[in-house]
Amino acid sequence: MSLAPIECDALVVGAGPVGLFQVFQLGLLEISCHVVDARPSAGGQCSQLYGDKPIYDIPGTPVTTGTGLVESLLRQVEPFAPHFHFGQQVSTLERQDDGRLLLGTSRGQSFLARTVYIAAGVGAFLPRHIALPGLPDFEGTRLFYHPESLERFAGQTVVVQGGDDEALAAALALVDRAAQVTLVHRRDVFQADETLQAQVRAAIRAGQIKLVIGQPSAFDAHRMQLETPEGASLHLELDAWLAYPGISPRLGPIADWGLQLARKQVPVDTERFQTCEPGVFAVGDVNTYPGKKKLIVCGFHEATLAAWAGAAIVFPDKAIPLQYTTTSTRLHELLGVDHPVR
Amino acid sequence: MSLAPIECDALVVGAGPVGLFQVFQLGLLEISCHVVDARPSAGGQCSQLYGDKPIYDIPGTPVTTGTGLVESLLRQVEPFAPHFHFGQQVSTLERQDDGRLLLGTSRGQSFLARTVYIAAGVGAFLPRHIALPGLPDFEGTRLFYHPESLERFAGQTVVVQGGDDEALAAALALVDRAAQVTLVHRRDVFQADETLQAQVRAAIRAGQIKLVIGQPSAFDAHRMQLETPEGASLHLELDAWLAYPGISPRLGPIADWGLQLARKQVPVDTERFQTCEPGVFAVGDVNTYPGKKKLIVCGFHEATLAAWAGAAIVFPDKAIPLQYTTTSTRLHELLGVDHPVR
Repeated sequence: MSLAPIECDALVVGAGPVGLFQVFQLGLLEISCHVVDARPSAGGQCSQLYGDKPIYDIPGTPVTTGTGLVESLLRQVEPFAPHFHFGQQVSTLERQDDGRLLLGTSRGQSFLARTVYIAAGVGAFLPRHIALPGLPDFEGTRLFYHPESLERFAGQTVVVQGGDDEALAAALALVDRAAQVTLVHRRDVFQADETLQAQVRAAIRAGQIKLVIGQPSAFDAHRMQLETPEGASLHLELDAWLAYPGISPRLGPIADWGLQLARKQVPVDTERFQTCEPGVFAVGDVNTYPGKKKLIVCGFHEATLAAWAGAAIVFPDKAIPLQYTTTSTRLHELLGVDHPVR
Repeated sequence: MSLAPIECDALVVGAGPVGLFQVFQLGLLEISCHVVDARPSAGGQCSQLYGDKPIYDIPGTPVTTGTGLVESLLRQVEPFAPHFHFGQQVSTLERQDDGRLLLGTSRGQSFLARTVYIAAGVGAFLPRHIALPGLPDFEGTRLFYHPESLERFAGQTVVVQGGDDEALAAALALVDRAAQVTLVHRRDVFQADETLQAQVRAAIRAGQIKLVIGQPSAFDAHRMQLETPEGASLHLELDAWLAYPGISPRLGPIADWGLQLARKQVPVDTERFQTCEPGVFAVGDVNTYPGKKKLIVCGFHEATLAAWAGAAIVFPDKAIPLQYTTTSTRLHELLGVDHPVR
């Protein structure tokens, strides 16, 4: 599937906090954005890993959470109505003869962009997949990674694999629904909330959950083979394998864009935060330069200077004065706010 | 008057938003600060010029005001209990034989600091003074710049000089208190709120305020001499001259510290935001480097990297890992917040 390319002045890769502030700064400079993110919604690492956890070092915000910060930034970019393209990764980047950049996504969408802002963090946070021969064939029928709902497993013989909050909560929730629940984990230690662990241990003692320690080594649609830490083999019959191998960041195809990666990071200058490709900027955790700290506050600055450098490309004939949101009537117009003229 | 020097690891010059965030970042690195500011309270330009005006471009804060931002930052630095020294300017900076920096203020306080962070903005916002020979002699007895209270002028013959909100409000407030109120301005146009202007014009028509257009050219304690725009001379008898010549930013003595100023700004590198003096950093509107934009969001980043560079000086033998306020129990301790360990 291949769709007609979307022509745009700015494509932002990544909808985490820094990508969102990139949209804001470009908006103030009258550049509207398309934004691509691998996840189904905005927020990146902040939502995925720190949604309900506290953040204390956003300047002027004594305390917030990952979710709170993302919500504030979404409100802040609202006046600029960015076009979000979720659930897809940018997989290719090519320079065209006219100087523009052609980018294609994993869903067949393509963009012809004058400037590109990589705000991909440490990569897309995607579910880890288990590496066993033939396993992908069973995905969605017998094997389910982080299933969104547990309804469909009612009455089934279920194996829940994993040892974190999500895996343990799923095993507990299935006790009264599934015909049989087996919890498989590589060792007899869980990395989860203590209350949740206590509940699972109680269910194991009560015979409601069967605990098996081992690593899956083969699967044939009905039978999982496991190796125990002692080197023995076990077999489990099952209707459904619910896998919670966690999520891991993957920089993904960006690594193949020829941007001279240094230890999985994109080197940039500190005047424009531009990569070795003119018009391709990198901001936030994905970039590197002397003194770099992987802090959100630094990404906000980087996005600001990248926006100004991008504006010089998008508007090559326009001298753009620095205006302040406090006093500029033009910026107030763009922000959609009304202030009496004094 | 000269006080014993205060020995400290970090002296921050300027208590505007960037100076306050400098304190916060140093606090996270376990460095406590002394802060000097020319004004009587924190906030700098933000409080002085934009106290009640909207600010839209602080990341994660869709809208605030100058006062709102400063209040948030003061809450944010509270756990680190900085020592504020208000109402004085840092007037001298000298390197000592032991490598420390000796700084003296206009009030005779001195500091022996291991690191210094200049966050002085475009300078101290101080009242402009009128340049007439002998005039400083009358300050506080006959001549009053931006007086804080009007009580003392009851029953007096008063000249209010100026054409902005503050001058017009003072003239109006004195109508029922002073024996006689004369408003002096260099031209017959005011730069003030329209309602206020209408009230003053009404008071002039009613004979409650006398309006004189002209520039003061001499003063002898009882008589102000003025030149009119047409070149004529006038004289006004008075008990008190209330002068509202506005405020203007002055970098002040920092200009004499040998920091290689470039157009009134201090050049810094972008790795440490260090000046040509080791251990002396410059952050926010006072500094310059390729790509520099005078935006608060950039100052926040600069203060962050300067804090890390300062920590390397204060703790030369300690490798400091980057920790996150979200997850670090040590940072939670420093911030005085409690989180259950999961």
